[in-house]
Amino acid sequence: MAMSKVIVVDWGTSHLRAYLCQSLANGELALLDKRLALGIAKCDGRFEEEIFSCIEPWLVSFGNIRVVLAGQVGSSIGWKETHYLPCPVAPVEVSKACLSFKKRGVDFSIVPGVSCNLDDDIHDVMRGEELQVLGWLSVKPEHQKGEYLICLPGTHTKWVLVVDGEIILFKTAMTGELFDLLNNQSVLIQEPSTAFDEESFIKGVKYTLKSELGSFSHGVFSVRSKQLFGQLTQQQASSYLSGLLIGSDVRAAINASQWNVSNVSIIGAPHLSDCFSKALALQGVGSEKYDVEQLTLLGFSMINKFSYLSQTEDL
Amino acid sequence: MAMSKVIVVDWGTSHLRAYLCQSLANGELALLDKRLALGIAKCDGRFEEEIFSCIEPWLVSFGNIRVVLAGQVGSSIGWKETHYLPCPVAPVEVSKACLSFKKRGVDFSIVPGVSCNLDDDIHDVMRGEELQVLGWLSVKPEHQKGEYLICLPGTHTKWVLVVDGEIILFKTAMTGELFDLLNNQSVLIQEPSTAFDEESFIKGVKYTLKSELGSFSHGVFSVRSKQLFGQLTQQQASSYLSGLLIGSDVRAAINASQWNVSNVSIIGAPHLSDCFSKALALQGVGSEKYDVEQLTLLGFSMINKFSYLSQTEDL
Repeated sequence: MAMSKVIVVDWGTSHLRAYLCQSLANGELALLDKRLALGIAKCDGRFEEEIFSCIEPWLVSFGNIRVVLAGQVGSSIGWKETHYLPCPVAPVEVSKACLSFKKRGVDFSIVPGVSCNLDDDIHDVMRGEELQVLGWLSVKPEHQKGEYLICLPGTHTKWVLVVDGEIILFKTAMTGELFDLLNNQSVLIQEPSTAFDEESFIKGVKYTLKSELGSFSHGVFSVRSKQLFGQLTQQQASSYLSGLLIGSDVRAAINASQWNVSNVSIIGAPHLSDCFSKALALQGVGSEKYDVEQLTLLGFSMINKFSYLSQTEDL
Repeated sequence: MAMSKVIVVDWGTSHLRAYLCQSLANGELALLDKRLALGIAKCDGRFEEEIFSCIEPWLVSFGNIRVVLAGQVGSSIGWKETHYLPCPVAPVEVSKACLSFKKRGVDFSIVPGVSCNLDDDIHDVMRGEELQVLGWLSVKPEHQKGEYLICLPGTHTKWVLVVDGEIILFKTAMTGELFDLLNNQSVLIQEPSTAFDEESFIKGVKYTLKSELGSFSHGVFSVRSKQLFGQLTQQQASSYLSGLLIGSDVRAAINASQWNVSNVSIIGAPHLSDCFSKALALQGVGSEKYDVEQLTLLGFSMINKFSYLSQTEDL
């Protein structure tokens, strides 16, 4: 397997990101090329067609290459369902429990998800983020010891408590999906704007800080009333809504009973990470930002390294 | 005008409800017939076509009839924009400030909305609900004196504080619209179910009571995780989601700083009113239910009576 090529794929709800990599002698991955395709929720159940049309050019150029996938692809609404490893769990454990199968002569492996049991019979689940946590653990040696809170903003924001290299528990917030629904399909926004207006974003965050207990569904109507009363332009409304939602997510996270937060590691796309960092700062919490793509590839490297090592041991 | 016919229309975001009435000698309205059509958000801007196709059969049978409209029809996304009367205001005042115009030879009047100014520059607005509050005020003489909290559940739930016959202030919650978006278009529900499951609804309400500060966007993911872990069937998931949303709305309302609640008057459709009544009861608050259609017609009666009286005085 040494020096062979491998395709690693982060296939989430909204996006598919495929990376062609060279597997180096020690099992680490070096990025060669990248391609994008549709997320699980967007490709209308045509999973096999979507992945093959995405990786086809690489198969044509380089012949058969094995594919490792992580994310919603393994969920009950994905391509092939894989189970969940229960917390507490060291993220590298996922490499031992992949679901492997062959399609059109290509070897596929789907990484399992991770689950945890919160208070009063509330479970939570993640798929894909465990890989980024795995990457985060290997980016600095000190991450292997001590207690950390990691925020992974996205369609479903995950807040992950890591202690001594293990995921102890985590919480999902629907922040990104709520933003998409409310920004594109509600009475609140007539014309969604993609231009970010920082002042309006901060106004939204600050409003949630001052708002009363559990008043999300009450407070969010201010997106419309502020436009009616000339306090927000149509162009500013999306940024204000984003501030309300991210502010509310961050407030809930720092008030959660499961951890004490003084600093948060944020793993996400640059703009979204900035937004979470600003909302945390407004609540007096510091943060460090990490590049999500870099950590995803590092996570896949760790899985590749581990399976490379275990295959070597098998010999 | 005495003994003439009048058409009154409650034209909201989701539904248009038109009533053909007989205006009695004292100005009160007696219901003759009812027709339904599409709400403001659903008729693609073709407002004139929608209202005329709805009332056409009555015009054909009885000749020209004047039409009085209330609700989102007068909003910035409606047919003709009317202004807002600022709180505190006696709801009967709206009858003095109608927008009147003629289309295809028919006289139309649109009732204005009501606005209020909450803390820190947050305004709120209502259109249509002021009519039901007007009906509620006239249904029992004691409603004219004292302090009352009225809940009007719907696409946008309104919580209205009435003191000595005047609307003092009110708050909007996006509960119904959030339910529609999350039930029909989110990852939480695969197949929306219209069968109500009371146990799951109560489970949802109770979860919000126990949940932490501002954790709506965190808690709502339990709709999905409970299905994944066999704690909810697909059929029960919609009822549980409804419980989460209504529970969260009710919790925010009874914790609002603007009023002290011991009893709530609920004006809404029977099933929705039951849901709010149950959620209030779980938080130790009693409620009385009123039929929304009856109060709407009573409200229009009051407006008709008032304009009948003022016309008589003009003679």
